[in-house]
Amino acid sequence: MLEPNDVVGILGGGQLGRMLALAAAPLGLRVAVYAPEEGPAFDVAALRFIGSYEDEARLEAFAEACAIVTYEFENVPAATAATLAARRPVRPGPAALATTQDRLAEKRFIAGLGIPVAPFRPVDASCDLAPAVETLGMPCLLKTRRFGYDGKGQAMIRGMDDLAPARAVIGGAPAILEGLVPFTREISVVAARGLDGAFAAYDPCENEHSGGILARTLVPARIAQGTAQAAVEHARRIGEALDYAGVFTVEMFVVEEAGGERLLVNEIAPRVHNSGHWTIEGARTSQFEQHVRAVAGWPLGDPSRVAPRAEMRNLIGDEAGAWRALAAEPGAHLHLYGKRDARPGRKMGHVTRLMDG
Amino acid sequence: MLEPNDVVGILGGGQLGRMLALAAAPLGLRVAVYAPEEGPAFDVAALRFIGSYEDEARLEAFAEACAIVTYEFENVPAATAATLAARRPVRPGPAALATTQDRLAEKRFIAGLGIPVAPFRPVDASCDLAPAVETLGMPCLLKTRRFGYDGKGQAMIRGMDDLAPARAVIGGAPAILEGLVPFTREISVVAARGLDGAFAAYDPCENEHSGGILARTLVPARIAQGTAQAAVEHARRIGEALDYAGVFTVEMFVVEEAGGERLLVNEIAPRVHNSGHWTIEGARTSQFEQHVRAVAGWPLGDPSRVAPRAEMRNLIGDEAGAWRALAAEPGAHLHLYGKRDARPGRKMGHVTRLMDG
Repeated sequence: MLEPNDVVGILGGGQLGRMLALAAAPLGLRVAVYAPEEGPAFDVAALRFIGSYEDEARLEAFAEACAIVTYEFENVPAATAATLAARRPVRPGPAALATTQDRLAEKRFIAGLGIPVAPFRPVDASCDLAPAVETLGMPCLLKTRRFGYDGKGQAMIRGMDDLAPARAVIGGAPAILEGLVPFTREISVVAARGLDGAFAAYDPCENEHSGGILARTLVPARIAQGTAQAAVEHARRIGEALDYAGVFTVEMFVVEEAGGERLLVNEIAPRVHNSGHWTIEGARTSQFEQHVRAVAGWPLGDPSRVAPRAEMRNLIGDEAGAWRALAAEPGAHLHLYGKRDARPGRKMGHVTRLMDG
Repeated sequence: MLEPNDVVGILGGGQLGRMLALAAAPLGLRVAVYAPEEGPAFDVAALRFIGSYEDEARLEAFAEACAIVTYEFENVPAATAATLAARRPVRPGPAALATTQDRLAEKRFIAGLGIPVAPFRPVDASCDLAPAVETLGMPCLLKTRRFGYDGKGQAMIRGMDDLAPARAVIGGAPAILEGLVPFTREISVVAARGLDGAFAAYDPCENEHSGGILARTLVPARIAQGTAQAAVEHARRIGEALDYAGVFTVEMFVVEEAGGERLLVNEIAPRVHNSGHWTIEGARTSQFEQHVRAVAGWPLGDPSRVAPRAEMRNLIGDEAGAWRALAAEPGAHLHLYGKRDARPGRKMGHVTRLMDG
């Protein structure tokens, strides 16, 4: 159990690291950030390390400065994690990273728990694609197994003419082909598991994407109570099977059928998540405080909602230009990440509104 | 109006500066802290300046790095404020500092607005004390005009034997003698005034002290509705008369009389205040965000309460040792300030509880 003034190391310097650092401070914990270049988290971190994820000496100096190390992104190279883990506990642990970094391993892991996923086929080499498409049918989605996010490294296949462009997007990397699910909603469960195995989930929330990027999260998700319970139960079992410590997020599809709603797990993020930003004002314990509590070995906090409904909207690229109006809007909780350059598609901030009815 | 990524300078590196910095970050504003030595605010500040308050060159470098400058303590030396104000706007402005740094000027200012204060007499020199005591009667309280806080620089006079020890506490400094008021409660109004003159007050809260240090704040204060309205109106008039920008706090005594409750203003703090810490979880906009909004020239936020009642308890000295139990208590919001050394009387943190009934 970390004690006040102990240092929590965060690998990654983006907005998630920034909001983790802002949540660690009130608990009396100090934060060290490690990233290849300055970013949003550096402005609020006590200790700052700039170094590449391959720089062993720098990583070791970082580890020495910390009591434990966590991360804000799932694509931490295995060698980086190993270097850090040789010196300090890395939480969540290596099983979570290995499983969630590889879409194929992830799908097999989830399916292995008996939890439904969309149909999938490995595409190890270019020549596997055509037979896989034939098996799954079209439309289907080709994704790199590693390093995809926000819709990057993906290609939709609607006809045989799409095979060549899809191969070009993937660029020969090991891939996975997924059948397209006729879902009515995308939801996510943001949950936490403590070092002691305690589990706490936020209410499932409903996510709307635009151009592959999360645009809006509503909570609670407009799904049946039984569906919400099943979604949380999926998350609980996934956390347990990974022997997880920290906050994680399970994205799911809701498919409406004659008999009611059916859930398919899409993917797991081994970290705090954009769809959990509403918890800063909308829950008794934010996902950021919850993650810090979990990786610090503290008891988990209360994840219950403080308002009947909450809505979070991302401010992408130019949308952050609306900050003046948002700052003046009663009840709008504005969050800007301190990024200098509002490039298209870049997450510049978000705004959360709590609603009574 | 400050824009995202502009720098807010904070003079002082304590817990108030720390909580201001934590509130500035979500608004996309960067923080520079200036203090003679490292303190709680440094861990969460983007830019850090260590220098004495007399070091003009260092102060100038600090001012150059900032868009505006504010402070977390009222005893900013006038020369320091002047050096900074020559380069950047200092908010709240010099009138607020000059008036609140001097208990005598402050009392005269308040009384000049027609707002009741405890009876007082200046004690410019030692020989003024005996006649002043004779005029006001005993018990009475001798206080230095400047640089007192948390009960320091004060001496109670209950009999003529106390005159010599009281003179020793004051040490020849200009002082003020105050008649002791038979109050039933101490309350405070934490309020904000925007650059545009807008005014927003939190509900009056009730304060309990122990050994001259705030121990506990309850909100709302257990006073009549008319008394609460009058308290807020006093604060509004004080803010206006000071042409104030930022959060300020007016401490008052409530005296119960046959006709009802009577208010006497005790003192003004030109800053965020310990009795406003409950606003972090208990109000829609915290006092820290509100202060940043005000000094940045942003619209003020909504100060309304999110729960029927809130209680804030300070963790003084050893009391912070209870952090394990507080971290495990459902609904307890723990705040630790990152101070290394739990000296007696030192504010190490606080805990806020919101209550439904």
